[in-house]
Amino acid sequence: MLTNPLKQKWEKGQPTINGWCSIGNPFTAEIMAAQGYDSVSIDIQHGALDYSAALPMLQAMRASGAVLMARVPWLDPSAIMKALDAGAMGIICPMINNAEQAAEFVSYMRYPPDGQRSFGPTRANFAMKGYGVQVNEAVLAFAMIETAQGMNNLEEIASTPGLDGIYVGPADLALGVTEGRLAPGFDREEEEMVAAIRRIADVCKAKGIYAALHCGTPDYAAKAIGWGYNMTTVSADARLLAAAASVSVARFRELTGTSAKSREKGSY
Amino acid sequence: MLTNPLKQKWEKGQPTINGWCSIGNPFTAEIMAAQGYDSVSIDIQHGALDYSAALPMLQAMRASGAVLMARVPWLDPSAIMKALDAGAMGIICPMINNAEQAAEFVSYMRYPPDGQRSFGPTRANFAMKGYGVQVNEAVLAFAMIETAQGMNNLEEIASTPGLDGIYVGPADLALGVTEGRLAPGFDREEEEMVAAIRRIADVCKAKGIYAALHCGTPDYAAKAIGWGYNMTTVSADARLLAAAASVSVARFRELTGTSAKSREKGSY
Amino acid sequence: MLTNPLKQKWEKGQPTINGWCSIGNPFTAEIMAAQGYDSVSIDIQHGALDYSAALPMLQAMRASGAVLMARVPWLDPSAIMKALDAGAMGIICPMINNAEQAAEFVSYMRYPPDGQRSFGPTRANFAMKGYGVQVNEAVLAFAMIETAQGMNNLEEIASTPGLDGIYVGPADLALGVTEGRLAPGFDREEEEMVAAIRRIADVCKAKGIYAALHCGTPDYAAKAIGWGYNMTTVSADARLLAAAASVSVARFRELTGTSAKSREKGSY
Amino acid sequence: MLTNPLKQKWEKGQPTINGWCSIGNPFTAEIMAAQGYDSVSIDIQHGALDYSAALPMLQAMRASGAVLMARVPWLDPSAIMKALDAGAMGIICPMINNAEQAAEFVSYMRYPPDGQRSFGPTRANFAMKGYGVQVNEAVLAFAMIETAQGMNNLEEIASTPGLDGIYVGPADLALGVTEGRLAPGFDREEEEMVAAIRRIADVCKAKGIYAALHCGTPDYAAKAIGWGYNMTTVSADARLLAAAASVSVARFRELTGTSAKSREKGSY
Amino acid sequence: MLTNPLKQKWEKGQPTINGWCSIGNPFTAEIMAAQGYDSVSIDIQHGALDYSAALPMLQAMRASGAVLMARVPWLDPSAIMKALDAGAMGIICPMINNAEQAAEFVSYMRYPPDGQRSFGPTRANFAMKGYGVQVNEAVLAFAMIETAQGMNNLEEIASTPGLDGIYVGPADLALGVTEGRLAPGFDREEEEMVAAIRRIADVCKAKGIYAALHCGTPDYAAKAIGWGYNMTTVSADARLLAAAASVSVARFRELTGTSAKSREKGSY
Amino acid sequence: MLTNPLKQKWEKGQPTINGWCSIGNPFTAEIMAAQGYDSVSIDIQHGALDYSAALPMLQAMRASGAVLMARVPWLDPSAIMKALDAGAMGIICPMINNAEQAAEFVSYMRYPPDGQRSFGPTRANFAMKGYGVQVNEAVLAFAMIETAQGMNNLEEIASTPGLDGIYVGPADLALGVTEGRLAPGFDREEEEMVAAIRRIADVCKAKGIYAALHCGTPDYAAKAIGWGYNMTTVSADARLLAAAASVSVARFRELTGTSAKSREKGSY
Repeated sequence: MLTNPLKQKWEKGQPTINGWCSIGNPFTAEIMAAQGYDSVSIDIQHGALDYSAALPMLQAMRASGAVLMARVPWLDPSAIMKALDAGAMGIICPMINNAEQAAEFVSYMRYPPDGQRSFGPTRANFAMKGYGVQVNEAVLAFAMIETAQGMNNLEEIASTPGLDGIYVGPADLALGVTEGRLAPGFDREEEEMVAAIRRIADVCKAKGIYAALHCGTPDYAAKAIGWGYNMTTVSADARLLAAAASVSVARFRELTGTSAKSREKGSY
Repeated sequence: MLTNPLKQKWEKGQPTINGWCSIGNPFTAEIMAAQGYDSVSIDIQHGALDYSAALPMLQAMRASGAVLMARVPWLDPSAIMKALDAGAMGIICPMINNAEQAAEFVSYMRYPPDGQRSFGPTRANFAMKGYGVQVNEAVLAFAMIETAQGMNNLEEIASTPGLDGIYVGPADLALGVTEGRLAPGFDREEEEMVAAIRRIADVCKAKGIYAALHCGTPDYAAKAIGWGYNMTTVSADARLLAAAASVSVARFRELTGTSAKSREKGSY
Repeated sequence: MLTNPLKQKWEKGQPTINGWCSIGNPFTAEIMAAQGYDSVSIDIQHGALDYSAALPMLQAMRASGAVLMARVPWLDPSAIMKALDAGAMGIICPMINNAEQAAEFVSYMRYPPDGQRSFGPTRANFAMKGYGVQVNEAVLAFAMIETAQGMNNLEEIASTPGLDGIYVGPADLALGVTEGRLAPGFDREEEEMVAAIRRIADVCKAKGIYAALHCGTPDYAAKAIGWGYNMTTVSADARLLAAAASVSVARFRELTGTSAKSREKGSY
Repeated sequence: MLTNPLKQKWEKGQPTINGWCSIGNPFTAEIMAAQGYDSVSIDIQHGALDYSAALPMLQAMRASGAVLMARVPWLDPSAIMKALDAGAMGIICPMINNAEQAAEFVSYMRYPPDGQRSFGPTRANFAMKGYGVQVNEAVLAFAMIETAQGMNNLEEIASTPGLDGIYVGPADLALGVTEGRLAPGFDREEEEMVAAIRRIADVCKAKGIYAALHCGTPDYAAKAIGWGYNMTTVSADARLLAAAASVSVARFRELTGTSAKSREKGSY
Repeated sequence: MLTNPLKQKWEKGQPTINGWCSIGNPFTAEIMAAQGYDSVSIDIQHGALDYSAALPMLQAMRASGAVLMARVPWLDPSAIMKALDAGAMGIICPMINNAEQAAEFVSYMRYPPDGQRSFGPTRANFAMKGYGVQVNEAVLAFAMIETAQGMNNLEEIASTPGLDGIYVGPADLALGVTEGRLAPGFDREEEEMVAAIRRIADVCKAKGIYAALHCGTPDYAAKAIGWGYNMTTVSADARLLAAAASVSVARFRELTGTSAKSREKGSY
Repeated sequence: MLTNPLKQKWEKGQPTINGWCSIGNPFTAEIMAAQGYDSVSIDIQHGALDYSAALPMLQAMRASGAVLMARVPWLDPSAIMKALDAGAMGIICPMINNAEQAAEFVSYMRYPPDGQRSFGPTRANFAMKGYGVQVNEAVLAFAMIETAQGMNNLEEIASTPGLDGIYVGPADLALGVTEGRLAPGFDREEEEMVAAIRRIADVCKAKGIYAALHCGTPDYAAKAIGWGYNMTTVSADARLLAAAASVSVARFRELTGTSAKSREKGSY
């Protein structure tokens, strides 16, 4: 029977680290999936990719054994069901502001009688032995709380039957909760943001669901684990690549006494 | 008139750092090109990509101002000319073993009377103002020396009219020169390899052409600059991403007391 | 003037067979379209494909003369209109539960004053002579009934002005109508399912619209034709390929006395 | 700080010409962007393309300096935000029929507190220096008026806070306003259509927003500029190509005395 | 039986016009194929495309009835046979300098005993009824003469058994024949170039093979027909699009009194 | 250490069945790889695909455990090495006519000192643990004999050090050996063809290498196993799909009394 290794780990109290794919390419996905993440998620919302890229990425990561998930662009049955049919074992849905939206989201995740997912796991069928209605038990439904309204309705949202967890994106949360007063970004240290982030973990625990946080660094992630988060995403492929390349160039510039400033324009 | 900023820098004695694209994706290319490299090269030989990926990568990097080059899979007129037509301002050609091959390579790089490049810069025309036969002056032809035979014929190869430089790939060079005695890899410290690598720089200088080295770290690159290399490639997008992600996961594992070993297989 | 050969056949009482594309590839589409189907439909809902794959598939099948249709992922104006603009001559829309949704669906199918389709058949223009507002007459709008609610509202839905037919997906219908009691699947033999499937054909006939059924085998399809269905889909490219390959392997195993069990894992 | 050159030109009273991409290809996009248009828009609604094609098109056009925009398929947060994240500096949204829809559209365009755009400009970050919440000031939100209802609510729609302009598509406008009495098409000369088109320009001016018109020829565009339109789109890549090729073939036929009629079918 | 409509027309003395695809996109191909060309050729040499783009282009153009051909990048069996397998009914091979190369080229075009083409027309099988070894009779082999050496060996090349024609690219011919003295370009008026171009037509006629010329305008093409050319290519999709768009922008600038110069840079 | 399961099976005397991919799509590849084949090969020669399609296919099939191989288009170092770098564990090289070509082929397959393969297994590195020079032992080099000349040189070719086997394509073999007298096709029953096919198996056995045959049916494959063949390919994805769909349509036509003939053309 299909089970979800993430759930098994969390039930044992084991925190997990989630990789994040913003680049629409099966090779970068395969590289990410080879680095030891417990799960890897494809960001169909803000990543530079859509379904047509996500499908071969899911295929390329299948052999890795990491749990594969997707963030969809919006509360949209088409996006959610297509990601599931393509083999995602979890969906992160942005901008859930109230219990009604949470219930709608959850309904798209599972086959009747649990929900209204349409049957036709065309690709999942070939990728996973025994894929059928019983996958209802294995898929993970994560709602994102990222607005003032969402925070106000946190308890209600977290009480939605069938919702497996809350996923927190600190950039939108900061913008949304403070109505733009704080700049977007990860690894928040402002008291009000820490309080909000910790409150979500507490409510999740109280409601018996999982909490996940998008982080910029493993150090902040470890702190979040201490706050009760079950899963942390740490950075993303695009940012990891940019940072690593940037450090490499800077070190070369320093060692050779050249500088970015010395770059001169050619005539093309 | 079209000029090549790399040549201008080298003429002034300024060393340069070259980015390396092994991932066949325009977004990773755009990320790489934004990091301050003097030039960025697409590896059509060993990269997980071919022409169909290289074309949008060249387009996506055009705005960056970095000089764009390509390593072709083999001494093959079709691959060389298609990369040039797509807008590459330099070609790195692998496995040049003698002066005859070097001359053949160079002939594919330039329009008559300098060579036998066929005219039809269909895309380059739209990307670069004034692209025409005068691009002969601006394109860079780098031959790779990576076999015992190539090393034996180094002086001859380096004397080829129209050849702009030698590009050294230490992995193949080690395998080739030692007939497999040494394992492939970058940043060689063995005396015989250092000697070979330095000899290439010396011969290039003597023959009035440029020397380029593929390195694993900026520190080794800086050392190579000291040996007279004009251009160094430092790592590649795939390796940079893998290393950065791996470090991130390891740090999380360490801080949270989880380990890769603790990953358990689900039933899918 | 544009006409739809399917309608002409059905008007003459001739049943038709519809091919089904779940694989996102123009060559598989071209193969399917060469097999003599009266129509071929691209499954943008559960197929492993989206618009970016469907477009070249429609182009590759154009020469075949088969009527081309698409199943869209959901009742979504964007998906419906883009499929029509790309040249689909019929749309199958899933999960229509009531007359209001049916009317909304139908409104997206046709240009004013018949509906609210937006004008801009960019590709269809080049593929079909005389494509314009008069295509309103030729396109086919099929609503899918696949829930208990849909069955309850069957007569109302079937009475929607401009709706051309009902398309039945037995997998979802079984799940939906029995609230998950029966497993999904084609070619239902349970009395209640046969009754439901036959009732749909009867209602369609009574309302003067067409009935279509998704089947697993030509034998069941022929039975459905006997019940009054006008069009039957028989299997799908992915299933046909898997079954044919599987039979071939099994026969080899049997004849050579090897077995799947004898497969041994290498170290990669 | 990010600014939008279109706004600057319009503020100075300078009319602009917008290029239109219906072909889903980065090379055609690069060609279009090289022709001197002030802005180029990708038609994700009626163009033969979707997000997966639009992304490399935006990358390929980045170097041109033209302002890049997109028409989305429908009032859909996912489509709007993904186009913005991919780097579009303006969005044209079809089928806005009332002030409520206009307000919803505008809310998707900007980060809080101005709207509800979700933060994560993954690609835009690498393509534009300083991309952040302040882009709220630079992006352009154009609503399309193309139905009788939209015309009735014109003043209200044009008064929507945050709406930057009205974009007029004469094909749909003719169909919509006359309920199908007039055929779709550009460059309308019927009195009622001219009146409608001029009224939109007048209302935009009165409300302090911009007016844009989709035209078939530069001559009609110039006339529209005279009516107060700030931006005119003139034709589209697909039509320009078809017309140019068709003229070329016709001239050949005429000069050589051959004709399309003389084409004879081979046996394949 | 498979026949080639081009041959039938030429046998009747009817000149033909060939469309030229440099853009790697099935929609541009479909547009081109709809304009009435007798044949359309995909430029895999200088076009911004490779096999992966050419395949869906051939599929998209199949319904048009135009004869489809391809120019390959070089005298390379892989490129030639893959284009044929994909359905090309003619191959234009660049840079044929002597009879030996011409014979090698021709050998790749046909199945034994006529040549050494490998059997496996995987896609052609599905696209053309009765595709088999008898296609040997229908495919057209055009060698390009574009060097001084090629001109010197013209008679010999033109005498190659199985060669169907000579295709002339005036840009390379000018560069090659004059060793770079004359600039590349179409529609040559220099006496020596006209003489060379006419001599090719004369030799083709004498040897009983066809002559084809790449032209920039229909007027020059008509002149070439007068010189005995059987087929003329007139411009190419990329150039036609660029020219048409450029004219449109210029006309707008002129009518509105704006100018390209007035374009001002934004801050992104 | 990397080993090749095919070799292990053959050493134990176990015959194997090889799947064949002619469709350039990762989903069809994933379907094929799920059917229990011991190995699956991608046909880059005659398949409707090239490297850009083969790469995601290799990724999608990785999880299946089947050994993955590729047939390259021609004896070409670029094609061979790129397929290996992409993860192919065996290469089938067409049109090997003599021992010199066989030796050249083999040299491209392995790193020095065994051959001249260039080092850079960029993707293979991430897909297979411990990929390095030791893969020399694991990769399989199959030469195709398909001409009269190849048959004449069979013993010599089969004696090439480092060659692992002969792969027989009966279509080309029939054409080549009989100089076009016999039509191409699989599952030959002509005495001379059976003799040739059996002779190859005998020579392979004598020389201590493996023999592989491309078959149309499992029954013929079983016969070939009886002749000493180690591996048989049975049909191909495109043919399996076409045949299965065709049978399905024919059965429907028969059961419903409709016929292909009754198809009537619409006006589009």
